[in-house]
Amino acid sequence: MAYTEYFAPTHVYFGKETEYLAGKVLKEKGAKKVLLHYGSGSAEKSGLLGIIRKSLEENGIKFIELGGVRPNPRLTLARKGIEICKKEKIDFILAVGGGSVLDSAKCIGYGTPYDGDVWDFYCGKVVPQKRLPMGAVLTLSATGSEMSNSSVITNDEIYPNDKFGCNTNLGRPVFALLNPELTYSVSKYQTGSGSTDIMMHTIERFFHNGPELDFTDQIAASLLKTVIKNTEIALEKPDDYDARANLMWAGSLSHNGLTNMGFESGGDWACHRLEHELSAIYDVAHGAGLSAIWSSWARYVKATDPSRFAKLGKLVFGIEDKDADKAADKTIDAFENTFAGFGMPIRISGLGIDATDDVCRMLAEKASLKGAKTLGNFRVLETEDMYRIFKAAR
Amino acid sequence: MAYTEYFAPTHVYFGKETEYLAGKVLKEKGAKKVLLHYGSGSAEKSGLLGIIRKSLEENGIKFIELGGVRPNPRLTLARKGIEICKKEKIDFILAVGGGSVLDSAKCIGYGTPYDGDVWDFYCGKVVPQKRLPMGAVLTLSATGSEMSNSSVITNDEIYPNDKFGCNTNLGRPVFALLNPELTYSVSKYQTGSGSTDIMMHTIERFFHNGPELDFTDQIAASLLKTVIKNTEIALEKPDDYDARANLMWAGSLSHNGLTNMGFESGGDWACHRLEHELSAIYDVAHGAGLSAIWSSWARYVKATDPSRFAKLGKLVFGIEDKDADKAADKTIDAFENTFAGFGMPIRISGLGIDATDDVCRMLAEKASLKGAKTLGNFRVLETEDMYRIFKAAR
Repeated sequence: MAYTEYFAPTHVYFGKETEYLAGKVLKEKGAKKVLLHYGSGSAEKSGLLGIIRKSLEENGIKFIELGGVRPNPRLTLARKGIEICKKEKIDFILAVGGGSVLDSAKCIGYGTPYDGDVWDFYCGKVVPQKRLPMGAVLTLSATGSEMSNSSVITNDEIYPNDKFGCNTNLGRPVFALLNPELTYSVSKYQTGSGSTDIMMHTIERFFHNGPELDFTDQIAASLLKTVIKNTEIALEKPDDYDARANLMWAGSLSHNGLTNMGFESGGDWACHRLEHELSAIYDVAHGAGLSAIWSSWARYVKATDPSRFAKLGKLVFGIEDKDADKAADKTIDAFENTFAGFGMPIRISGLGIDATDDVCRMLAEKASLKGAKTLGNFRVLETEDMYRIFKAAR
Repeated sequence: MAYTEYFAPTHVYFGKETEYLAGKVLKEKGAKKVLLHYGSGSAEKSGLLGIIRKSLEENGIKFIELGGVRPNPRLTLARKGIEICKKEKIDFILAVGGGSVLDSAKCIGYGTPYDGDVWDFYCGKVVPQKRLPMGAVLTLSATGSEMSNSSVITNDEIYPNDKFGCNTNLGRPVFALLNPELTYSVSKYQTGSGSTDIMMHTIERFFHNGPELDFTDQIAASLLKTVIKNTEIALEKPDDYDARANLMWAGSLSHNGLTNMGFESGGDWACHRLEHELSAIYDVAHGAGLSAIWSSWARYVKATDPSRFAKLGKLVFGIEDKDADKAADKTIDAFENTFAGFGMPIRISGLGIDATDDVCRMLAEKASLKGAKTLGNFRVLETEDMYRIFKAAR
């Protein structure tokens, strides 16, 4: 029996100054004692943490703080959070930051009500059955972690060069406060990288091996057009509210399941897996890693179904060509140009990485667990395919 | 502080044969003893109820049945349901049918954990704080009640000619099983009426008095184009799976809040209120009532902001005209023609109602509670405006 689930229960509060709602919403959602989790400085400097602390105090919410989350978040810090939550009987987590802080909070949320080692969930040994509830105050439009079921962690203790994911419906935040103004200060590079990540969450879903639901394709195209148009505006004028608002909401919808509704497989996701090898070893920005690989992946798999690429190109860029193969080429070029226009690398060299033959071979071996697994489903990739894609992308 | 909430927690299972999941999903969501609530015959005849009964039995879910819901559902039957739920300690409701069955189930859900009279919630005296959880097996793409916060009830005891609503986040179903195949047997007239209702849930949201979020407008346009295209197919070929699938998912997204994201007011809704007067007295299909009124409303309010109509026309129909007023006229004509193409009336006379001056006056007086309230916010309507719109629409 083939069906798709759509489950996006996160209660979103969207608009200016929504961070001021933190205490009130936590109270409504039943929080009594909160772990306030954040990154390494900017939320403090901007005054955001001050606003949130005050809001919590005014609503009688007790809280303990744990900052210091880095991009590509580490297990060590999450373990510290779990220890605090267990000891202090924390009943809710509030993550303030971008996707890394949210993912770290998800890991803490899984680990706290669990007697074993939280790593069990990420290495795939155990499926989590409980999670401490969490909310988010988002400061970056990118990963969509604020509504997604995903979390990605680097186990810096034993696998410092690998990223592991835990994707369950329990991972979806209870609420998210989305104030586009909080992203005004995001740099051009991080804006471009974030927008690429947003687009890739929908592009990965667009390519799959099942029947399509046209309405979902139409929504996907609306989302991609929205991101392209508004990234250009935000890069030019970082404090354009409308542009930041469109990007922020696109980020949430791109990864909450909406753009794979009706597709049984949920998408291809090979590029994400290939990119995780890059960002785990070289600590590059996820979006930049994705743009460095995507067009090489696309040209490699295009022949599987050029008409799918053609449909995407027509919907997003208005590309018309009776020859599906040519339309597919034009579509791939158009996305490549778009990412380049965002200031993103479109080859691995643009990340400052010297991808020698040996490096490409090593990345492919890692991505396939030495041939133990394939990637993707639009076109299933073996180790040799991955190697060729890395080589083409270098 | 101005913000929009988006909260659509319903867990959707979408695809062929999803009705077979009923027992399994109820069990996962914690149900032990269920009220199986449905309409007046078709679900029994088609074998759907048999499938669901078997699924419940196989999963050890006890259940008691209450059928007989009519279109424009009545309070009397809901009261009977509340009595059964209280007496039998029912902990979950499963609604099998279209919007009327779902709305009746919502009313029962509100009334069961409440010591007072459930009517308190619909007449606006009390805001509900609890609700028995409910799930839905949908058989009609129309009202969007499967993900919406809305429910509408007719109090046949004291106000047989009025419809009352209770809209709270508690009203959103816990889960919905959406199998497009179950709508193959929907008649041409009900298909056209359902599609009109779906479109109107988004059109009403498109017109508002606040700033717009372009991404939401783009999604709205995708939804409207999807419904127009697929209704034409479904009217021609009632068992076209893709057409029915696109319509079903459009129905859910049209009323779950997605198409007013970023708009503080949530939309205009004057046409819905005006139509409720028609369907409460004359028991017409809701979608048919909406199409009978909409273009007259649109022409009446157009001058408030013709550019908003022009934007909608451009996005949905590709209408281009530098003169916003002319573009607005073309847009209204295009929607009128669309509804007519669905086999829907575009005037009140098409509903078989003789809307004399006195009738129009009476409807306007009812809609405004004798001048006590206005309708809409794109353009605020007084009693006299309502009267003129009814007159123009007759």
